[in-house]
Amino acid sequence: MGKGTLLYAQSGGVTAVINATASAVIQAARAKKVKVLAARNGILGALREDLVDTSKETAAAIRALAHTPGGAFGSCRYKLKSPEQDAAKYRRLLEVLKAHDVRWFLYNGGNDSADTSLKLSRMAAESGYDLTCIGVPKTVDNDLVVTDTCPGFGSAAKYTAVSVAEAALDVAAMADTSTKVFVYEVMGRHAGWLAAAAGLAGQGRDEAPQVILFPEVAYDEAKFLARVAEVVKRVGWCVVVVSEGLRHADGRFVADAGGGTDAFGHSQLGGVGPAIAATVKDRLGLKVHWTVPDYLQRSARHLASKTDLAQAQAVGAKAVEYALKGMNGVMPVIVRTSDSPYRWKIEPAPLEKIANAEKKMPKSFIDRSGYGITGACRRYLQPLVRGEAPPPFRPDGLPAYVRLRLVPVARKLAPFG
Amino acid sequence: MGKGTLLYAQSGGVTAVINATASAVIQAARAKKVKVLAARNGILGALREDLVDTSKETAAAIRALAHTPGGAFGSCRYKLKSPEQDAAKYRRLLEVLKAHDVRWFLYNGGNDSADTSLKLSRMAAESGYDLTCIGVPKTVDNDLVVTDTCPGFGSAAKYTAVSVAEAALDVAAMADTSTKVFVYEVMGRHAGWLAAAAGLAGQGRDEAPQVILFPEVAYDEAKFLARVAEVVKRVGWCVVVVSEGLRHADGRFVADAGGGTDAFGHSQLGGVGPAIAATVKDRLGLKVHWTVPDYLQRSARHLASKTDLAQAQAVGAKAVEYALKGMNGVMPVIVRTSDSPYRWKIEPAPLEKIANAEKKMPKSFIDRSGYGITGACRRYLQPLVRGEAPPPFRPDGLPAYVRLRLVPVARKLAPFG
Repeated sequence: MGKGTLLYAQSGGVTAVINATASAVIQAARAKKVKVLAARNGILGALREDLVDTSKETAAAIRALAHTPGGAFGSCRYKLKSPEQDAAKYRRLLEVLKAHDVRWFLYNGGNDSADTSLKLSRMAAESGYDLTCIGVPKTVDNDLVVTDTCPGFGSAAKYTAVSVAEAALDVAAMADTSTKVFVYEVMGRHAGWLAAAAGLAGQGRDEAPQVILFPEVAYDEAKFLARVAEVVKRVGWCVVVVSEGLRHADGRFVADAGGGTDAFGHSQLGGVGPAIAATVKDRLGLKVHWTVPDYLQRSARHLASKTDLAQAQAVGAKAVEYALKGMNGVMPVIVRTSDSPYRWKIEPAPLEKIANAEKKMPKSFIDRSGYGITGACRRYLQPLVRGEAPPPFRPDGLPAYVRLRLVPVARKLAPFG
Repeated sequence: MGKGTLLYAQSGGVTAVINATASAVIQAARAKKVKVLAARNGILGALREDLVDTSKETAAAIRALAHTPGGAFGSCRYKLKSPEQDAAKYRRLLEVLKAHDVRWFLYNGGNDSADTSLKLSRMAAESGYDLTCIGVPKTVDNDLVVTDTCPGFGSAAKYTAVSVAEAALDVAAMADTSTKVFVYEVMGRHAGWLAAAAGLAGQGRDEAPQVILFPEVAYDEAKFLARVAEVVKRVGWCVVVVSEGLRHADGRFVADAGGGTDAFGHSQLGGVGPAIAATVKDRLGLKVHWTVPDYLQRSARHLASKTDLAQAQAVGAKAVEYALKGMNGVMPVIVRTSDSPYRWKIEPAPLEKIANAEKKMPKSFIDRSGYGITGACRRYLQPLVRGEAPPPFRPDGLPAYVRLRLVPVARKLAPFG
């Protein structure tokens, strides 16, 4: 066995700060003279033996990764099945790792990735190959269990709160003769974490957003419309935040952004935002505008949360520390030790506890009306959006985002599959 | 006649920096010991005698206006007809102005507002009332003639270029297994200025946005789809920017965001962005995502252009200077004296030249493919997005936007209409 290399890969939807984790991983490994390879497009790069040699990147480029959104090595939406069902793939993975003397595998993703890391570590152990697997948390959905929050969420939350606050000032100015109701669609198919974050934009019942439609609360059209009408009457205008995961009482999504066809069989890609806006227009006769920020909310590195950035870097550095200590099958998680002042630390947690589980938003975070957030929710969320960490900007007015060289590692094996 | 007051009002769609103009107006007037009243909701506030006394605002609040988006005094979408058709309204305006000894009227808006200012100044002159009317430019649409650019546009342009660059990094990371084509809808019903600004996000044919659909170029679906397919084949993914004003060859809008109903008579509020995305999905079988930033693009003060902010303040200060000099019927416009280094100055231009006219984007700004911008376009646009001017942030992570007291001025007249 040689000195061993560390393999890093990114998985799932990328965030404004996943590259900050990558940056911290590479810097921490370099400090320990450990060579870091990165798999292109997550676990698929490992299967394909499509690896890049991060030692070919300059120190400045690796530093700049910390302020560059997206996923510099490519990510993937790809879940390995069980080692029984996907035996050939697991064998291939192990072959690739062995061929490149990979002794530490860091998979940066959500609960699927934690599951993949866990299965891989078990398989390596069974086959007698010395491999330490670490899951590194990341997701704007904030749905990993055990950890207090997930790197990426705080920045998306900040983007959402700021954008809602800004749009509300616009709507307030226009409401006399124009738009009365503004609908803002946020991500979060399974849980209302980002919808709740929008609540940080204002305080009290008259400040925007006056109505939040959570995936946790069944959509009641009549009640919703009554609420909007009441707010418009009192305030003059209303901002509605709606989660893409909003459902009817029977569990159906109110709008399926991915599907639906019109009478001619053409796809209809309207999300829940425009659907809710159309309902307000038709039923209340009010002028509406709507926005679907989509990827902007998870890639807006220019408006990242400083707290989130620090946590994204901390989990990266700790992941390397745990790996080199041989702490197999763990994830560095964020532990909150105090709300105010906000204090946190990183601790290892077993991947068994995290893989495939999903953290729901507590019922106590939604107020009794069902349309707002509680004080407990604010206390949880507020520290996560604190602080600014803007990227450097170029003289031409755009952020100085880095593009890596991505020098490929020479293949040692025959192509797979 | 007393010393006289200055009346300021905001009109049309608000911007990230229209309040910076208001801030400069009030500061310049205060420096000259001139009292500033503001009409609520533009010219409607003047008709309704719904005025606020800006002298009740602190100096700190007026300074903070410069970093607060929206329209602090309320805006309106309301166009007065000719003095013949709307005679009663013009008479009422003059009564209100006289009642409050308004000797200077500054209307901050687009070409409709320039027209209103012009008509009002003529009517005052005819009736022997000493009134100086100034139009103050503002519009994210960048469609005022004479002026080099319009305050508000540069910040929306910067927001667009940065957001496209960020989303492109996301798409590039996901393309291997997920989204291949991302569609970004920009404002600009009549001209492609903001669509062109998206072009600043990248350079060369492989950087995003690889395809811009301008309102100036008739939509050719087959040609567009061939282009997207070619880009996806070469680059692996494609970012499409589409103007809300995109039209078919016969002049019809490709999607009417304001209208359309489904088979049940329910409103369909999908814009052109989701419509184009659906076409790509159906015809090319590629996974798509789309965004409609809507009001976010014109209210994102957190990402304002420093150049735009400086110009918004400069036109406000100059408007007061011109007003107090009695330069009736003019607008302070931005004159570009050099591209590189970018130099500009403010000069007065007659409102006759500006009212109701519309600046189109030059044909020379769109490249031969019809899907990109030219070097001439870059030279024009780039200085406008240069420099950052972020607002101060509060300890809770949100921008410290100000809310004015808006103390009403006692009414002196009977209600109108």
